[in-house]
Amino acid sequence: MGSFDQATAVQRIGEGRYSAELDAEYGFEQALNGGYLMAVLTRAALDAAGRPHPISTSTNFLRVARPGPAGIHVETRKSGRTADVARVTLIQDDQPLVEALITSGTLDGGAEPLYSATVDDLPPLDECVTYTHQGLSGFAAQVDMRYDGATMGWLDGQPSGRPEMRSYFRLRRPYEPDGILLALAVDALPPVVLNLGPSGWSPTVELTWQMRAVPAPGWLALHASGRLVSDGWFDEEVEVWDSAGKLVAQSRQIARSGRNRR
Amino acid sequence: MGSFDQATAVQRIGEGRYSAELDAEYGFEQALNGGYLMAVLTRAALDAAGRPHPISTSTNFLRVARPGPAGIHVETRKSGRTADVARVTLIQDDQPLVEALITSGTLDGGAEPLYSATVDDLPPLDECVTYTHQGLSGFAAQVDMRYDGATMGWLDGQPSGRPEMRSYFRLRRPYEPDGILLALAVDALPPVVLNLGPSGWSPTVELTWQMRAVPAPGWLALHASGRLVSDGWFDEEVEVWDSAGKLVAQSRQIARSGRNRR
Repeated sequence: MGSFDQATAVQRIGEGRYSAELDAEYGFEQALNGGYLMAVLTRAALDAAGRPHPISTSTNFLRVARPGPAGIHVETRKSGRTADVARVTLIQDDQPLVEALITSGTLDGGAEPLYSATVDDLPPLDECVTYTHQGLSGFAAQVDMRYDGATMGWLDGQPSGRPEMRSYFRLRRPYEPDGILLALAVDALPPVVLNLGPSGWSPTVELTWQMRAVPAPGWLALHASGRLVSDGWFDEEVEVWDSAGKLVAQSRQIARSGRNRR
Repeated sequence: MGSFDQATAVQRIGEGRYSAELDAEYGFEQALNGGYLMAVLTRAALDAAGRPHPISTSTNFLRVARPGPAGIHVETRKSGRTADVARVTLIQDDQPLVEALITSGTLDGGAEPLYSATVDDLPPLDECVTYTHQGLSGFAAQVDMRYDGATMGWLDGQPSGRPEMRSYFRLRRPYEPDGILLALAVDALPPVVLNLGPSGWSPTVELTWQMRAVPAPGWLALHASGRLVSDGWFDEEVEVWDSAGKLVAQSRQIARSGRNRR
C-alpha cells in the first residue's frame, strides 16, 4: 500500500458499517498517526453522508490503533439542509479506539471571504529545514515537510522557549490537497511543547478541526502554536494555509505533555 | 428556578441515564442558550465519571432545545487512569438535540504553568459597557456582563470591522466559578461577526472547549476573536481568564453567520 488514497480507503459493508485496512506506513513504530486515523474516519463519514467536505471533526483518541483490519461505524444523528452530523467510531478487536463526531457539508470553492486573518509567510522553501536522512520509515517517509528553522531549535538541544512549529507540507507521492489530506495535515507537526523542554510521546486526547475552504493545488503551510502548558496538559492550535494564501483548516488539540525532559 | 445550581441540576434515574428540567430563564425567546445546555450535560458527565473537571467537551448542536423536561444519556467509552471519555446526548421527545463527547478528569488547583500566553487586560470594570435596561429577561437577566466598549460599536451601527468581543462575566446571583460555569462562559458573548456586519441569529453548529485550570473566585474575563468569515461560516475562539490572571478555559466554535445585514 502506501498511496494515500489506498491507505485511507474504506469499504462499505452495510448500513453505516465500513471496513478498512490500516496501513503501517502511516505509523511510528507500532502506533498509527492520529491524522491518518482521522482521514480514514472522514472517508467513511463523507461516503455515508454523500457530502464532499468535512466541515467539523471532533476526535477523541481512546486507545492506540494498530496496523491491520479495522471496522468503522457511522451513526447519522442529523441529516439537515446544509450539513449532516454523525458519530463515527474506529474499532479493532471489538474495542472503540477513536470516537469522533463529524459534520459534513459542501463548501463553495469560489467563496470570497467576508473577513480573513493573515499570517506571516513561512521562509522560502529552499531556506527551510528538512529531516531528510537515510532510512526514513513510517509516517515520516510519507510526508514531505520543510520546517521553518526558527521553530526547530529543539532538534539541536536549543528549544526556542515558544510553543510554535511551522512547516510546509505535502505528500511525497503526488496527491493534491483535499478534505482528507487536511485531516492528516492538522496533526502532522511534532508537538509544540518540544520547544519548551518536555519530550517523549505526547498523546493527543482530543482534537477538533474545521475545514474552512477548498484548498488550491500545491504545498500547504502549517502554523502551530500553543497557549498554555500546565498540569501535564498542553493545547496546540494548527492553521493550514494553501498555496493561494487561503486559510483552509484550523484545529485545536489537547494533549498530555511528554514526561521526559531534555 | 433560576439559580444556576438548580437550573443545571440532573437526577440520576439509572445506569448512564439522567433527567433534567431545562429552565426558560437561560433562554432567549424559545431557544435555550448553548452554554447552558453544555453546563447541564457536563453535570451528568461528571456525575457518571465521578471526576470533578470537564477537561475537554465537544458539542454538536443538532436541534433547538426547549424549556421543560429532558433526558440525558451518558455512555462511557473509556475509563482510564487520568481521564474518562463519554458520549453524552441531550434528548427531548425521543430526539437527540445535542450530541457531545466529554473527557472528565482532575486538574490540580495548585499547578504552576510551565508556559502561559498572556492577554491585554480588559478596561477597568467601571469603564465597561453594560446592557442594563428595563425588562431584561432570559439569559441576559442571569448573567452580569461588562463589555469592552471597543468591541461594541455594532450596538450603535458602527461595527469595528474586527471579529472581536470582550467582556467581564459573572452570574447576577452569587456563584463562584467552576467547571460548570465555564461551560456557560465560553458561549456567553454575542457572536463576533456582529462587528463585521452580519446580524440576526448565528446558530452554533459545533463548539469544543477545554477547562485548563481551576478558576479563582471573582469575575471572569472573556476574550473572543475569529479568524475567517466565509461561505456562510465563521469561527469564534473564546479564552476565559480568571481574576488571578490564569487562562482557565479556551474554546472554538464554528457557526453559521446571520443572514441579515445591517
